[in-house]
Amino acid sequence: MIAKKMQEQVQNSSIIRAMFEEGKRLAAIHGAENVFDFSLGNPSVEPPLEVKKAILEIVNNEDAMSIHGYMNNSGYEDVRAAIAQSINAKFNTTFTQNNIIMTVGAGGGLNVIFKTLLNPQDEVITFAPYFGEYRSYVGNYEGKLVIVSPNTVDFQPNLEEFKAKITPNTKALIINSPNNPTGVIYSEETLIKLAEILREKQKEFGTDIYLISDEPYRELAYDHAEVPYPSKYYANTIIGYSFSKSLSLPGERIGYLVISDQAADCENIIAAANIATRILGFVNAPSLFQRVIAKCLESKVDLDTYNRNRELLYNGLSSYGYQCIKPEGAFYMFVKTPIEDDVEFSNLAKKKNILVVPGTSFACPGYIRIAYCVAYETIEKALPGFKALIEEV
Amino acid sequence: MIAKKMQEQVQNSSIIRAMFEEGKRLAAIHGAENVFDFSLGNPSVEPPLEVKKAILEIVNNEDAMSIHGYMNNSGYEDVRAAIAQSINAKFNTTFTQNNIIMTVGAGGGLNVIFKTLLNPQDEVITFAPYFGEYRSYVGNYEGKLVIVSPNTVDFQPNLEEFKAKITPNTKALIINSPNNPTGVIYSEETLIKLAEILREKQKEFGTDIYLISDEPYRELAYDHAEVPYPSKYYANTIIGYSFSKSLSLPGERIGYLVISDQAADCENIIAAANIATRILGFVNAPSLFQRVIAKCLESKVDLDTYNRNRELLYNGLSSYGYQCIKPEGAFYMFVKTPIEDDVEFSNLAKKKNILVVPGTSFACPGYIRIAYCVAYETIEKALPGFKALIEEV
Repeated sequence: MIAKKMQEQVQNSSIIRAMFEEGKRLAAIHGAENVFDFSLGNPSVEPPLEVKKAILEIVNNEDAMSIHGYMNNSGYEDVRAAIAQSINAKFNTTFTQNNIIMTVGAGGGLNVIFKTLLNPQDEVITFAPYFGEYRSYVGNYEGKLVIVSPNTVDFQPNLEEFKAKITPNTKALIINSPNNPTGVIYSEETLIKLAEILREKQKEFGTDIYLISDEPYRELAYDHAEVPYPSKYYANTIIGYSFSKSLSLPGERIGYLVISDQAADCENIIAAANIATRILGFVNAPSLFQRVIAKCLESKVDLDTYNRNRELLYNGLSSYGYQCIKPEGAFYMFVKTPIEDDVEFSNLAKKKNILVVPGTSFACPGYIRIAYCVAYETIEKALPGFKALIEEV
Repeated sequence: MIAKKMQEQVQNSSIIRAMFEEGKRLAAIHGAENVFDFSLGNPSVEPPLEVKKAILEIVNNEDAMSIHGYMNNSGYEDVRAAIAQSINAKFNTTFTQNNIIMTVGAGGGLNVIFKTLLNPQDEVITFAPYFGEYRSYVGNYEGKLVIVSPNTVDFQPNLEEFKAKITPNTKALIINSPNNPTGVIYSEETLIKLAEILREKQKEFGTDIYLISDEPYRELAYDHAEVPYPSKYYANTIIGYSFSKSLSLPGERIGYLVISDQAADCENIIAAANIATRILGFVNAPSLFQRVIAKCLESKVDLDTYNRNRELLYNGLSSYGYQCIKPEGAFYMFVKTPIEDDVEFSNLAKKKNILVVPGTSFACPGYIRIAYCVAYETIEKALPGFKALIEEV
């Protein structure tokens, strides 16, 4: 009785979520402290204190009708202006409130922009390994996700194959940096080359190709690594941002889109994205949290905690002989499996009460994703299991 | 460059919103106090004090990670259990947390359920006058909205025509009671007859037809009028509820779906609705407000304020000779225009700085919708304009 498309979805229901349920089952048997769940990208660091302060300030001092009421579907003008100003100060851009649309997290924002842009059969390119939800988001609007195979040398995108896969039907490219699942930051050199290829192909086909940059991990960059701002390298850029990780607010569903005035047909895109926000049933991003994040634009979670986890896990796994690129951002490590079959390896790990996600879920077999947004002690206690695993296989 | 479907949407952009902008323009010219904007269904009564109290209690006493973190896509188990319990106590039903899915308002919930149920070309029936967003919500999933013409005698649904319009492709009926735009409550007799027709047609065609009840106005019923609970009359019922009006929280986007265990294929519907919540980019209903509403399930806004408005407006307009059904719920009055052309009449009203929505927007020409969720004084000051209007035409 449910829609045919959803029947497939129910059958193939997210491996990541299934793993989460498996974790709860194992915890019930072995005790939560003896199950090492590295499967979910759920922030493990407290929101900065500014968040609580902002909520209390707003709720205690502002008018309830204006805190919780409707506003323009794109969000509060003053909040959008504050965001534009904050981006401009950091990246020397010239956005105004008109370029900003508040969204129900990055997931909401990506749905809004795909609804805005995609005709059936339009192609959206992404680079493996990629966040599996892109397939659903593009599929929601009858678009076709085109995967560029991974460059497993350094996990920068495979630009030669990318160039070859652009067609007259290519409507957009979606990138994610710092990347889930690799933790790699796409370099400035990558963005410059990407932009050159896109411009060349636009000219060749007489089309516009939008670069959609999904940036929930922008603020999670270690060792002062720089995350280049894509709008500066390519005119047809749309940014999807989220406060889920930068402020540890994933449940609150708050983020924004940045649609550049330099983007082709930008006025229509902005108008249509406003309408898409309404008709998809979002209506607007949650109102209190729009006001909260406006007071926390320069705050972020304590990165040191994630960094300690990163060092412990990376050094541990490396010393046992695991191969992986040291992540520069986000809170994931993408590790080559010592046997070819990543699904089998994940199952072996499960027998040691270690839960990880097979790279196959990200279109990159032969790897596993370890989400290290967990307690430091979880990593300490799981390391012997990882050591035993590589010794056994 | 934007999607073809969105081009039409941008062109036909909601008349209601255009009216809102017109209101701002007139206010700039004549002063806000001299413009009488009855065009938007934006609550004008403060949220009950329990809302503020709940926010402060939660933020001051609970762990920030659990307030703002991810949870199951369907929402917090304890919140869903509390909602089920509250419904059961009121309507003698037997729901559990498994029947409840927390949603980003009713708009989000309706999108989730249409995504869950609709194959392309599936038909969804609704009764005119109807809330215009249904057309977009159904269209998002390639469904076809089928309109049953209005019964302008008492604005209960036109059941004869309804029966005739059910086909083997009918997947759902969507109703809205207390109704936007009429304020009419669908009677128990209506629901009993509706259910009989649906059962008869299900049998005739060997299909399942879902009754989707959109209930943002359930708590806004005057003179202790009863709003029957549809699940009690028909097994294949799905309720879409929202706290936007009952607690004056429209900006916070918080509501829920109730999917009955008696509904055909309910297990798959519940599983698919959970996935639809995720892949449409909602991910989950805003987390803090899930916890807030759980503490406010027996609270509601001060109905007396809306009721005073209702009495003033109804008595005033009736005394001038306008014809309309006295609304039993919600905060809208649906008034017969003294000339046939409702769009022309709305334009004449605009010349008196009175903003209303033509019935044509609700597939019911010859009427206007007056949203009386405004200050009492706005009605007092607008009444002479309404009087002059009917005298002039």
